[in-house]
Amino acid sequence: MKNGSTINSLQAALLEKADLRRVRSDPNFWYPVAWSREVRPGKALGVQFAGHPLVVVRPTNGAPYALDGLCPHKQVPLSKGAVCGDFISCLAHGLKYDRKGQCVSQNGAADAGLLRLKPWACREKDGLIFVFMGNQALAETKPLPDFPRVRDKRYRTRRFGQVVNCHYSFMHENLMDMNHQVLHSRLVGKMKPRFLGMDRGEDFVEARYTFARTGGKQPLSEALIYGQRRKDGRDFAYRDVMTIRTQYPYQTLRIETQGIDEPVMELWISYVPQDRQELTNRVFGLLSIKRLKVPFLLDLAWPVLVAFTERVFFEDREIVELEQQAWKELGGDHNVEVFPVILALRQLLRDRGVSPPQGE
Amino acid sequence: MKNGSTINSLQAALLEKADLRRVRSDPNFWYPVAWSREVRPGKALGVQFAGHPLVVVRPTNGAPYALDGLCPHKQVPLSKGAVCGDFISCLAHGLKYDRKGQCVSQNGAADAGLLRLKPWACREKDGLIFVFMGNQALAETKPLPDFPRVRDKRYRTRRFGQVVNCHYSFMHENLMDMNHQVLHSRLVGKMKPRFLGMDRGEDFVEARYTFARTGGKQPLSEALIYGQRRKDGRDFAYRDVMTIRTQYPYQTLRIETQGIDEPVMELWISYVPQDRQELTNRVFGLLSIKRLKVPFLLDLAWPVLVAFTERVFFEDREIVELEQQAWKELGGDHNVEVFPVILALRQLLRDRGVSPPQGE
Amino acid sequence: MKNGSTINSLQAALLEKADLRRVRSDPNFWYPVAWSREVRPGKALGVQFAGHPLVVVRPTNGAPYALDGLCPHKQVPLSKGAVCGDFISCLAHGLKYDRKGQCVSQNGAADAGLLRLKPWACREKDGLIFVFMGNQALAETKPLPDFPRVRDKRYRTRRFGQVVNCHYSFMHENLMDMNHQVLHSRLVGKMKPRFLGMDRGEDFVEARYTFARTGGKQPLSEALIYGQRRKDGRDFAYRDVMTIRTQYPYQTLRIETQGIDEPVMELWISYVPQDRQELTNRVFGLLSIKRLKVPFLLDLAWPVLVAFTERVFFEDREIVELEQQAWKELGGDHNVEVFPVILALRQLLRDRGVSPPQGE
Repeated sequence: MKNGSTINSLQAALLEKADLRRVRSDPNFWYPVAWSREVRPGKALGVQFAGHPLVVVRPTNGAPYALDGLCPHKQVPLSKGAVCGDFISCLAHGLKYDRKGQCVSQNGAADAGLLRLKPWACREKDGLIFVFMGNQALAETKPLPDFPRVRDKRYRTRRFGQVVNCHYSFMHENLMDMNHQVLHSRLVGKMKPRFLGMDRGEDFVEARYTFARTGGKQPLSEALIYGQRRKDGRDFAYRDVMTIRTQYPYQTLRIETQGIDEPVMELWISYVPQDRQELTNRVFGLLSIKRLKVPFLLDLAWPVLVAFTERVFFEDREIVELEQQAWKELGGDHNVEVFPVILALRQLLRDRGVSPPQGE
Repeated sequence: MKNGSTINSLQAALLEKADLRRVRSDPNFWYPVAWSREVRPGKALGVQFAGHPLVVVRPTNGAPYALDGLCPHKQVPLSKGAVCGDFISCLAHGLKYDRKGQCVSQNGAADAGLLRLKPWACREKDGLIFVFMGNQALAETKPLPDFPRVRDKRYRTRRFGQVVNCHYSFMHENLMDMNHQVLHSRLVGKMKPRFLGMDRGEDFVEARYTFARTGGKQPLSEALIYGQRRKDGRDFAYRDVMTIRTQYPYQTLRIETQGIDEPVMELWISYVPQDRQELTNRVFGLLSIKRLKVPFLLDLAWPVLVAFTERVFFEDREIVELEQQAWKELGGDHNVEVFPVILALRQLLRDRGVSPPQGE
Repeated sequence: MKNGSTINSLQAALLEKADLRRVRSDPNFWYPVAWSREVRPGKALGVQFAGHPLVVVRPTNGAPYALDGLCPHKQVPLSKGAVCGDFISCLAHGLKYDRKGQCVSQNGAADAGLLRLKPWACREKDGLIFVFMGNQALAETKPLPDFPRVRDKRYRTRRFGQVVNCHYSFMHENLMDMNHQVLHSRLVGKMKPRFLGMDRGEDFVEARYTFARTGGKQPLSEALIYGQRRKDGRDFAYRDVMTIRTQYPYQTLRIETQGIDEPVMELWISYVPQDRQELTNRVFGLLSIKRLKVPFLLDLAWPVLVAFTERVFFEDREIVELEQQAWKELGGDHNVEVFPVILALRQLLRDRGVSPPQGE
């Protein structure tokens, strides 16, 4: 894999094409746009998908639905309005819409027939609200992502995420490139990753690593994930395998350790473009950790683990935002990528993504 | 008036023309640029009209005058300088100008003949300072607005206003469209407007409404305006007439009630463009309320009324700024206007306004 | 010198050429980019020269060096990384570079040969770190600026400076135009400058002034510079000569007084462009004041002097930033310069500077 000509031919292929940071997300997938808990019954929430404003409405009774986010009358965000039964009404002039997006008001001289919002396929699953922003006829044919660990009582799941000011491709690259463990060395001690190999297909790239600790003390939170499963304490060199996979457009990370059948940790993550240029994304992450043999030990230790993952996420965010910032200042992508699995990932993201609009 | 074809033909006419939010204010009118109290004797104030910086100077003695706002030497704002007698001098190098805009300094090697500021017609009336920014030869021929209620002791007048980040057309539409009462329902209770009719001419559009309360309690501040003039308390359905008129470029709102000769309330309002693109305006409003029979009752209640109007204004501002924001994000006007009086108003503002510069 | 035709011909010459505020600094000089104290051993500092990011590294032992500021891998600023011995390593993936800018890492699949940073000529002198950003072959041939007063124990030197949001030409003009003393009249009292003459050559313009106090009290800090050297107190009309010189690209200001051989004050100042358009500069100033006969009196009074110069600098900064702001709003340079020495200075800055890139 370290063959220089492979790298060079991959790089040449990349250079022929448009800047990866301008490639847009394929909308013909289900993307999460809100946590279920963000939209209580009788409330509405304004969200974005690639610059498209949406309102997610949860009626007093029944399933949530999603409509274009701006009232067609004067483009005031409907999320500022009020939910009445199954309807959403606009703050500004009280125009009321049903779940199909049709205006049903008869106030004043309003000719409601002209007022119509586009409805979007919307589903709720495992605490996430998804929309399908591509060809609506395809929505039924595309499966929602599945997270069996979230419903499995032998695991505990943490939901996390926030807005990160970068193109989603930086996020995929960052998670898959384990040389960036050096970034977290103050948190996790010195770790030496060993690349075990990669696998690729039409819609995925997968990298496998193992690790040896070369310095520093194993942190408590890491021990919670696999440490205490061993008798031999800190000596865990190259026993654990971390598998990172971009299954377009989602990404997963799985840790397996010797002698345990199921993963000790599994992460599912989606990077949802916010602005039209997709230079900002909102992260929706589900981090499932296998419970320990001692009951409730994981629960007791949960706050430590939450703080640990928050700090790792904070450090990652700083890096990807610096990378995006440099892209803006330099007016384009100047990466000199030297790691074959990342070159393969970049190719995948380019091939599966959508070209930017003409002139961008 | 609810005839669909009328609406459609009006809409078609609008679509043929430039985006209303790009239309500029006709400068051949007197526009207020400052409250008199903002410019004390011996002081200068920097103001804007449609991106044109001005300095309003009030000499130690005599009437205020207005000049171009930037010193021609190095474009430092003259409002930072000092007023000496009848002159204004620049902070940076002390260059001194008279009320005709001619530099009168002889300091150092300065060749004062090259330094000259354009003077602009300026008048003061009823606590407002006006300028005339169009053809200066027309200034004398155009009347200043008149506010008889301001000088009438049977009324008390509140001066209000602030900068609002939207094109002035949003302000006109917002005030004239009484369906937007729904916006203030928390403040004023549920009101059902009934449209009585409209009137239009070459330079005005006027809408008349009456109201019925359909829910909620009449607020004290509203009672102060007309409530206590009735014996029968809350039951005031459809007795009051509200007349809203855009008399280009100004706007007025008048409330009359049964059995009283003069209006119980009269509002005069002007929206003065601040930036060159006119996407920000400064409001100058005069709200005159008829005094009650009980002497000083209105004065006692004045703070309540001030707070009430501030809250109404705050809610209105949020809406018009959201509308402007949507216009920016969507790259143009996407209104689907369904209320004939607002379509007529939009036509008036377009016809009386000035086309944007080429290429904008 | 007040001859109108001279002024007009100079102005005509200026108008034929590009806008002075778009002219770029000639990079073939040594420019300060940091104070020595800002880069401690084992630390790195990120700086800018005209939009070019640099990292200044001071190894644990040895002289500082300067490299391109962004890691070529993913453009993360190297100033975020760590200095290890003579190397700097990137925060994100640990890639390590030597003082020639060559990547020396062997981690993972990294092909270090592709990773290379450009090194820049770097020198340290008298508490300043300089870089040479032009043709590197010329670096050795160009002298570093010299500041003999900084090493002279009969003087005490204050280092000052901060980022100012304007093109460097505004800074040069502001310091050389002594009519702007009016700006500081609240700080220094009323001063009447008398222009003694100017001198110009291929790479410099020099102006000489003398001053008379026409009002106000001499401030303590000014007395510290020359006041107490006279028996006759406040009456110091036209005895002192101030010489201001732009020796491209630097500027100096010197005050000499009757009966003293050496300057009582000497200022050296450099305006280093920060952004690519050079509309922001960082000031590096060395202000040397001759010690008084009474030992330590200057030291005792130093805080007063520091506060005084800070306030003068603050007032100057406000003016030049207003001038820059007006340039931005008006879309170009509208100066009407009437002072011949400033016209000559503008010509110098234009002749010695570099044309803006095509299309700017």
